[in-house]
Amino acid sequence: MAHPLVAEFNAYRARMNERILASDSRVIKRIYSVDAQAYEPGALDAKTKELLGLATSLVLRCDDCVRYHIGEALKAGASEAELVETFEVATVVGGTIVIPHLRRAFEFLDASVSTPTSA
Amino acid sequence: MAHPLVAEFNAYRARMNERILASDSRVIKRIYSVDAQAYEPGALDAKTKELLGLATSLVLRCDDCVRYHIGEALKAGASEAELVETFEVATVVGGTIVIPHLRRAFEFLDASVSTPTSA
Amino acid sequence: MAHPLVAEFNAYRARMNERILASDSRVIKRIYSVDAQAYEPGALDAKTKELLGLATSLVLRCDDCVRYHIGEALKAGASEAELVETFEVATVVGGTIVIPHLRRAFEFLDASVSTPTSA
Amino acid sequence: MAHPLVAEFNAYRARMNERILASDSRVIKRIYSVDAQAYEPGALDAKTKELLGLATSLVLRCDDCVRYHIGEALKAGASEAELVETFEVATVVGGTIVIPHLRRAFEFLDASVSTPTSA
Amino acid sequence: MAHPLVAEFNAYRARMNERILASDSRVIKRIYSVDAQAYEPGALDAKTKELLGLATSLVLRCDDCVRYHIGEALKAGASEAELVETFEVATVVGGTIVIPHLRRAFEFLDASVSTPTSA
Amino acid sequence: MAHPLVAEFNAYRARMNERILASDSRVIKRIYSVDAQAYEPGALDAKTKELLGLATSLVLRCDDCVRYHIGEALKAGASEAELVETFEVATVVGGTIVIPHLRRAFEFLDASVSTPTSA
Repeated sequence: MAHPLVAEFNAYRARMNERILASDSRVIKRIYSVDAQAYEPGALDAKTKELLGLATSLVLRCDDCVRYHIGEALKAGASEAELVETFEVATVVGGTIVIPHLRRAFEFLDASVSTPTSA
Repeated sequence: MAHPLVAEFNAYRARMNERILASDSRVIKRIYSVDAQAYEPGALDAKTKELLGLATSLVLRCDDCVRYHIGEALKAGASEAELVETFEVATVVGGTIVIPHLRRAFEFLDASVSTPTSA
Repeated sequence: MAHPLVAEFNAYRARMNERILASDSRVIKRIYSVDAQAYEPGALDAKTKELLGLATSLVLRCDDCVRYHIGEALKAGASEAELVETFEVATVVGGTIVIPHLRRAFEFLDASVSTPTSA
Repeated sequence: MAHPLVAEFNAYRARMNERILASDSRVIKRIYSVDAQAYEPGALDAKTKELLGLATSLVLRCDDCVRYHIGEALKAGASEAELVETFEVATVVGGTIVIPHLRRAFEFLDASVSTPTSA
Repeated sequence: MAHPLVAEFNAYRARMNERILASDSRVIKRIYSVDAQAYEPGALDAKTKELLGLATSLVLRCDDCVRYHIGEALKAGASEAELVETFEVATVVGGTIVIPHLRRAFEFLDASVSTPTSA
Repeated sequence: MAHPLVAEFNAYRARMNERILASDSRVIKRIYSVDAQAYEPGALDAKTKELLGLATSLVLRCDDCVRYHIGEALKAGASEAELVETFEVATVVGGTIVIPHLRRAFEFLDASVSTPTSA
């Protein structure tokens, strides 16, 4: 059972992706498809690719992208220490302007790894 | 013996870094120092961190940063296939606006791995 | 009768624009004025100019700007298909980092074209 | 007694900064430290440095950074006229894409200087 | 016979695109393909789509992208007045930071439309 | 007699500004005019405004804008120490991605303050 912050993010994302793909835009469908392909394991494994996605999302300061890649990196087996070191590189590269996004990244990370208690 | 493209880049970078550090700005010196620290191996190895630096530089479209991290990633043992997959993630994340920088990245990569012939 | 998402956006925008113009900043007033002028029909018609405003807002990932230009483009006679093709170009240019903004753009578009039922 | 908008911003910022520093990331701690150092008075006084922080935050369109530097600039003695002229330069440099952030900046400024009534 | 500025740009672009596609990256090939598709005429004609590409390139301040879309817009029948109005919207949206890129855009536009004299 | 780096920058800038204004775009002329107005002394003096222009140019990583504002800040009486502290804030805010631009900024600053020897 996901933390409300995580559940709400995932629900909105799923609902609107469905809406977008229902627009029958072939261009956007192909962007979604090549996006998925770019993160498939190859010379680099899935975890490393997710960390690349996470670091680039942080320096571009896209909170939703950061949230998504935190979730995918955790699924691909990234440890909290690996996520924090990814945050470190991104904050050094992107500067203090990244820090507000780092706050939300830590909040989402904590929500993602929290052990849900029974309701 | 480095390719002229690589040699020129390294020479300018070294010369101006020396100039900057000669300005006696404690803030800038500390930024240089924390920059170095962020790429030291920890939970993630040096190669992965350089790839994070490379991907973030590409999406932020900083040619000089891309060149620097291509060099460091190669030194840290990254293969050409790993560099290309890093380019892939960055181009998907950052869009076609990244492509002109990708051209210069490939040019610098080729210059970096070219076997220098005797002069 | 506007959808709540649209009504709330318009109300906040109108209220704060009024506040800003009340600050008696001649520079900001002139920026507002040249902004209006740039979208007046000339060699390009008003619809095309709004689509330019929309595409640039999307790649710069400014949700409020996207919302504003969706509204203006619809008023200028843009069809949903034309808006979607504008989204396509912007997403190709700007990359997957644009996608979260695309979700909100589609949501606002749907809210803008929804037939309000009687209250 | 702070306006709710200001109080909520400060509380979230303080809570998450505490969380981030608890992660024991030496790199991030050093970024926080050099950040503080950059705004210490030197050849430029504290107020001018805060206005530099404010202007750069505006053109980079980071609402939380803008809020933070409005607060610090006020503490350092900046007048409302000085803040508005800083907004002017930032909006000219950054374009109309800055305007939605300007709306929120004025809202936060008004909340920051509002005379709290007795509770 | 193209102006040297145009010829050099096109030659480098063609040579490096060939190099990139020779890397056998399926992801990058697909990005090139969806890029081409996004500018195909549909609800919007080719000229309008090129102007969207031009405006987004200007606000993202990518000189090479600007050059490419100036060339494509001219081929698609855009007049100089239409290009200038596209520049206007982009400069209003993106601010004075766009102006250095506008200088190079006008220079490339002039080089593109110059009547080549016999050699 | 200006250093070649400075002279070349100023000459290209002047020539292309003349070309742009010759395009008879009322929108662009007004942007140039409001740009000039924003830097006129008011509550903040001219030097402080130029430093705001410099810092925002650095974080937006616009080399030509940085060069222009270095020149204007020097004319307005800014000391080298004040320029360096402005660089410090901008580099902290914008991150290491700013450093390549800082190299060129220092190079241009040195060229600007060099005592020209007789030719």
